[in-house]
Amino acid sequence: MNYDDLFQTQLDALKTAGNYRVFANLERYRGNFPRARNHAGGRGPDEVTVWCSNDYLGMGQHPDVISAMHTALDECGAGAGGTRNISGTNHYHVALERELASLHGKEGALLFTSGYVSNWAALGTLGARLPGCVIFSDALNHASMIEGIRHSRAERRIWKHNSVEDLDRQLSEYGPDVPKIVAFESVYSMDGDIAPISEICDVAEKHGAMTYLDEVHAVGLYGPQGGGIADREGLSHRLTLIEGTLGKAFGVVGGYITGSAALCDFLRSFASGFIFTTSLPPAVAAGALASIRHLRRSSSERERQQQQVARLRAKLDAAGIPHLPNPSHIVPVMVKDPVKCKMISDILLEQYGIYVQPINYPTVPKGTERLRFTPSPAHTDADIDHLVQALRALWSQCALSRAVA
Amino acid sequence: MNYDDLFQTQLDALKTAGNYRVFANLERYRGNFPRARNHAGGRGPDEVTVWCSNDYLGMGQHPDVISAMHTALDECGAGAGGTRNISGTNHYHVALERELASLHGKEGALLFTSGYVSNWAALGTLGARLPGCVIFSDALNHASMIEGIRHSRAERRIWKHNSVEDLDRQLSEYGPDVPKIVAFESVYSMDGDIAPISEICDVAEKHGAMTYLDEVHAVGLYGPQGGGIADREGLSHRLTLIEGTLGKAFGVVGGYITGSAALCDFLRSFASGFIFTTSLPPAVAAGALASIRHLRRSSSERERQQQQVARLRAKLDAAGIPHLPNPSHIVPVMVKDPVKCKMISDILLEQYGIYVQPINYPTVPKGTERLRFTPSPAHTDADIDHLVQALRALWSQCALSRAVA
Ligand SMILES: Cc1ncc(COP(=O)(O)O)c(C=O)c1O
Ligand SMILES: Cc1ncc(COP(=O)(O)O)c(C=O)c1O
Repeated sequence: MNYDDLFQTQLDALKTAGNYRVFANLERYRGNFPRARNHAGGRGPDEVTVWCSNDYLGMGQHPDVISAMHTALDECGAGAGGTRNISGTNHYHVALERELASLHGKEGALLFTSGYVSNWAALGTLGARLPGCVIFSDALNHASMIEGIRHSRAERRIWKHNSVEDLDRQLSEYGPDVPKIVAFESVYSMDGDIAPISEICDVAEKHGAMTYLDEVHAVGLYGPQGGGIADREGLSHRLTLIEGTLGKAFGVVGGYITGSAALCDFLRSFASGFIFTTSLPPAVAAGALASIRHLRRSSSERERQQQQVARLRAKLDAAGIPHLPNPSHIVPVMVKDPVKCKMISDILLEQYGIYVQPINYPTVPKGTERLRFTPSPAHTDADIDHLVQALRALWSQCALSRAVA
Repeated sequence: MNYDDLFQTQLDALKTAGNYRVFANLERYRGNFPRARNHAGGRGPDEVTVWCSNDYLGMGQHPDVISAMHTALDECGAGAGGTRNISGTNHYHVALERELASLHGKEGALLFTSGYVSNWAALGTLGARLPGCVIFSDALNHASMIEGIRHSRAERRIWKHNSVEDLDRQLSEYGPDVPKIVAFESVYSMDGDIAPISEICDVAEKHGAMTYLDEVHAVGLYGPQGGGIADREGLSHRLTLIEGTLGKAFGVVGGYITGSAALCDFLRSFASGFIFTTSLPPAVAAGALASIRHLRRSSSERERQQQQVARLRAKLDAAGIPHLPNPSHIVPVMVKDPVKCKMISDILLEQYGIYVQPINYPTVPKGTERLRFTPSPAHTDADIDHLVQALRALWSQCALSRAVA
């Protein structure tokens, strides 16, 4: 049996479909975000402007974050040295968990190595350990939630994206004694639309279901202290579990869940993906803590981001470049073809020094390929003008359909 | 439905069984490993000696590692800012993958956010995507491999721990056209025994099976350049895939696999746990790179560690303290009772300033509870003497059976 041949066959199919990915090799430099050095070896200018980062507010270069990390690195060394249970719990982990619980108004919080692992481990453990549990999953939930649900082997019901009616109908098929989890996101990262959290909570409460909310693309960005959409809408107390990441708006890496003390203790005690892995480096926890604390006090980053998002949208509209309207900070320009999407992205990089990754299958459904722009407080008005001019030139060049006014 | 009650019931059962875990809250301080500040709030002295760290060589405080991390932090900022595909590939990731491939003599390597995720994602993806694949899993494989296999939904066969005969027998039940993966570890972390890698490869080759080797507790520690047990025995080329961690002997955090270019590209392209998650911070990758490079050049840490391991074993023998004999750096002192195990650990911390976490179920099978000591190059002879004296005092106190000479 030639295993490499088996691998190659599946890779060739990806290439034929236009879905093979080539990673851009970049060097972010602190203090210059969203600029980055381009290590692509001849492809494009040496310095590019990053337009697709999930370091949404540029907190990855914030002086408080960097300095907290330097300090913790000098104090505690590089890694945690063990799992949380076996020598790997540091006072920074404890302080960060407290801060996260307070940010979301919950009794407790639990750190994971990533947002992916927090979703996978939390849903996987809840679904497996609540006897007879049924998980009601929004149709557009992130891969990490899908994999967690799959892993749990609990019964899974998929409800129509953001449809409270469909959720209600499906929940009503199960009696009151069946444990139920309603799993959904606040800001959906690829379309940028936002879930009707309050209505979803109404329906979940009516049927006695737990609510599981992924706020990965909202924490740090919405709410008076950056607690996310639920925080902004005063709904945090209605959610059983809020999950988030430390790797996007907070600018570092790691994931977490928050909820009741019993829920956190339950996952702490039973989730394999929490127990059997080296914990986050103290310096990472220290950086995330500094970032959260800053964003709880300061709204200027959020305000400036919202301004630049609005500015980009207005300029795109004026140029007739079609983009998905939505109430968030994510600006998806639809191309709807994987090959064209990659081609436009290549030209933007090589001729305009604009780096935006083509978003193809499996990240989005086939036929909805797009460029996904994430304006940050650090993008200047000139950056936005340059981007829109480049897109305008390309749009005529590629004969892509302009939005009709 | 009161979900907190459901959680609490399962937590109470853990407590009754003596398996409820309380994390020690420690502050490692750089330059002083294995000392750490104890934040337990009144439980034990302020400064303790850590005896159960998986920062096996103290590389988490090595000046080259710390300084590489400081530099990268200043150059690139805190986090990677995206997934590997979407703006999160940095030149440090690329350089680290090259170094790992070279360390293991393989064509390629692929980084994951942790060793746990690398096992889960690699086995999960291979098992799911090789049509009709059967995975042959050593009975004592780590949770992350077990979960990956479970996730793949491939047929799973468990073979008797380290038994080449049983593996051979089970493999022979399947025809040559069935894709097969033999999954095992080199150093088993809880017993410290080592797999017969060469014989396992013989049997796997005979039956046309891939070999998947977890070297998490061996990388950095064995082999002339720290490539692990396969490297030490000149067997790396016979393994299809070698998996490792950056969070134990390398002292930082993260995981990886190495193998053929096609295998790495396959997992890069299809593994959900690789694709849909923020990549490791550049500073983490830079620290791991510095650590690996140092341990490829320098054997003094490995030699000194082996000396201290031998010294601890000899002193335990002289004191009549029973420990599992094995050919590795792991010294398990068997207690075989979860309550006693925790009690001894508490007394060691509170009265002797010795921190060793009790290892209870589910990390080890019930009835095999133990204290697991990991002597490092930084533990002094006096540390060892102090530990053995403390254990000797406790062993009489607790009336535990002494090993008969
Ligand atoms: C909705 C959603 N949840 C979870 C994750 C995973 O978070 P992390 O990058 O911290 O693993 C992501 C993206 O990566 C996401 O988009
Ligand atoms: C054998 C084995 N494999 C994998 C892992 C996971 O590695 P990491 O801590 O990097 O997640 C561990 C321990 O944590 C382990 O003992």
